[in-house]
Amino acid sequence: MPELRKDPVVGRWVIISTERARRPSDFAPAPVQRSGGTCLFCAGHEARTPEEILAVRRNGSAPNTPGWSVRVVPNKFPALRIEGELEPAGEGMFDRMNGIGAHEVIIETPDHQATLAQLPEAALVDILRAYRDRILDLRRDPRFEYIIVFKNHGEAAGASLEHPHSQLIATPIVPIMVEEELAGALQHVRMKKRCIWCDIIRQERQAGGRIVLEEPGFVALAPFAARFPFETWILPGRHQSRYEDTDAEELRPLARLLGEILRRMNRVLRDPAYNFVLHSAPLRAEAREHFHWHMEIIPKLTRVAGFEWGTGFFINPTPPEQAVKYLRGARTGRAGSAGSPVS
Amino acid sequence: MPELRKDPVVGRWVIISTERARRPSDFAPAPVQRSGGTCLFCAGHEARTPEEILAVRRNGSAPNTPGWSVRVVPNKFPALRIEGELEPAGEGMFDRMNGIGAHEVIIETPDHQATLAQLPEAALVDILRAYRDRILDLRRDPRFEYIIVFKNHGEAAGASLEHPHSQLIATPIVPIMVEEELAGALQHVRMKKRCIWCDIIRQERQAGGRIVLEEPGFVALAPFAARFPFETWILPGRHQSRYEDTDAEELRPLARLLGEILRRMNRVLRDPAYNFVLHSAPLRAEAREHFHWHMEIIPKLTRVAGFEWGTGFFINPTPPEQAVKYLRGARTGRAGSAGSPVS
Repeated sequence: MPELRKDPVVGRWVIISTERARRPSDFAPAPVQRSGGTCLFCAGHEARTPEEILAVRRNGSAPNTPGWSVRVVPNKFPALRIEGELEPAGEGMFDRMNGIGAHEVIIETPDHQATLAQLPEAALVDILRAYRDRILDLRRDPRFEYIIVFKNHGEAAGASLEHPHSQLIATPIVPIMVEEELAGALQHVRMKKRCIWCDIIRQERQAGGRIVLEEPGFVALAPFAARFPFETWILPGRHQSRYEDTDAEELRPLARLLGEILRRMNRVLRDPAYNFVLHSAPLRAEAREHFHWHMEIIPKLTRVAGFEWGTGFFINPTPPEQAVKYLRGARTGRAGSAGSPVS
Repeated sequence: MPELRKDPVVGRWVIISTERARRPSDFAPAPVQRSGGTCLFCAGHEARTPEEILAVRRNGSAPNTPGWSVRVVPNKFPALRIEGELEPAGEGMFDRMNGIGAHEVIIETPDHQATLAQLPEAALVDILRAYRDRILDLRRDPRFEYIIVFKNHGEAAGASLEHPHSQLIATPIVPIMVEEELAGALQHVRMKKRCIWCDIIRQERQAGGRIVLEEPGFVALAPFAARFPFETWILPGRHQSRYEDTDAEELRPLARLLGEILRRMNRVLRDPAYNFVLHSAPLRAEAREHFHWHMEIIPKLTRVAGFEWGTGFFINPTPPEQAVKYLRGARTGRAGSAGSPVS
């Protein structure tokens, strides 16, 4: 059983993944699986993954057979285990609990060679809807406090399988970075009676220099204090705490904006590895209405070293205003699909 | 002029390093410089670095000539600039200031091929003393709030030069991770009237299973909630807030412990890349007496991906108790120099 442990000084929880416990000799990095022929996530290999939880099947095909366009399955090597109770326990001044949670894989397409940036808008909508529907299902489990959706694209970004996929992890605690965002947001609400992300969007729309693109209802911007070169956030333009409240109509412009940002990054940065993470409001925390969901897209361009690890202090060699100029100027193949740059 | 910018939500500062601003085409990773012949840090090339700030020269040789065993020089491409005033300024709801600070390189040995793990104890003492003496000098500058010493060993850990060196950055703000440690420590002091790290050491000594080694006055342990496999901390056994208060007598057992931990990691993990960071008390924060300095040593064994970046939630595949067993059992070449494992 994996275990959750809390650092007694800073309150950060970690997952001690005892089920895949590694011996020193196991740390030779596994090569990324490249071959389409033996890929577990490719169409035709459905029987080799755990049984699907959700799939988009427009042709009426049976579960766990080919014919799907998006497929969600449990992670075969989950970081957290779905069965069991939390059983929080102390060990002197230390706190631990069982590593209960859900760990799912969203297989984004049956096509091993595709990428999110290349997929048609309708396929992206299906993927974004799968995120939403899995969150709506998992939030009913009272053991979970948070659900994070993220993607590792490319080996440098930590991907261990090449086939296009994203992941979802439901956790019994709120991750420390979201706690910090929530605390900052709450302080702002107490002082100003306003959402801090709404204020940021308002100020950035007035100033203009850090907005990359807008689509109806959504804005893509470079954060003022970007940690990484070309870091880009997508937020709903109007206050919305929970990603999972996004309705079918809203998923289309969101898919268009996400796809266009990824294509522009590919154009400007020559197909970089990247991570994205979706921050939605915690499922049960008080005052979560002040949260404003957002997606953080981070191309993997620089090495992160001891200074960053040891301080949380990042050195970003590209001012966000400069990154925005490149992203705005990028021409992609899809003329009609791009939002208008804000001048 | 580099710039410091604060994230308005979480309060995290970043360095926007405008002086080495990168264009998209600049992100092809620079290869690590391997050749001893052209290495700036090798003996004989002293004129090619900025003028030395400090050097250990036991043979009376002149500054900026060969004959040194440790040499400290300003970083040729500093993340922060030493000249100027902070000039904090607002931009609507955003905060920024000039990127003022010191960025120095501690060249650990004239021998390009050496490593910290191999150096004799006396050489390690000189390096640890150089850290201390540079902190004692820089802390007199009223613009600085914090001084971090860190090391990137190996390409996977972010080193861009092969020649053995560590770095020091003095910053006008306290890094967010140290702020968080200080906040946690202060809460503990308010509740218990005790230092939280002293309590951790006391509990770990009683339990035993996470202590790697002890030397007189210092303890090396695996933290209960280790983020990374084989993460190891070195702390003074008795309460001490500031690394720079370590006296000449104490530097010897500290050097012995650090060297032995690095040798054991090399033995068990086959010469891994690693980072270490030294967390000392902030220079001027109130209540800094409750801080307990420590060194965090992190072998670079696992990929860090979107989940960790996006949540601050780490998945550690090796329980610290298991890592400790391996490190305790490791035999290194230096019988007499190792501390006694605690049973």
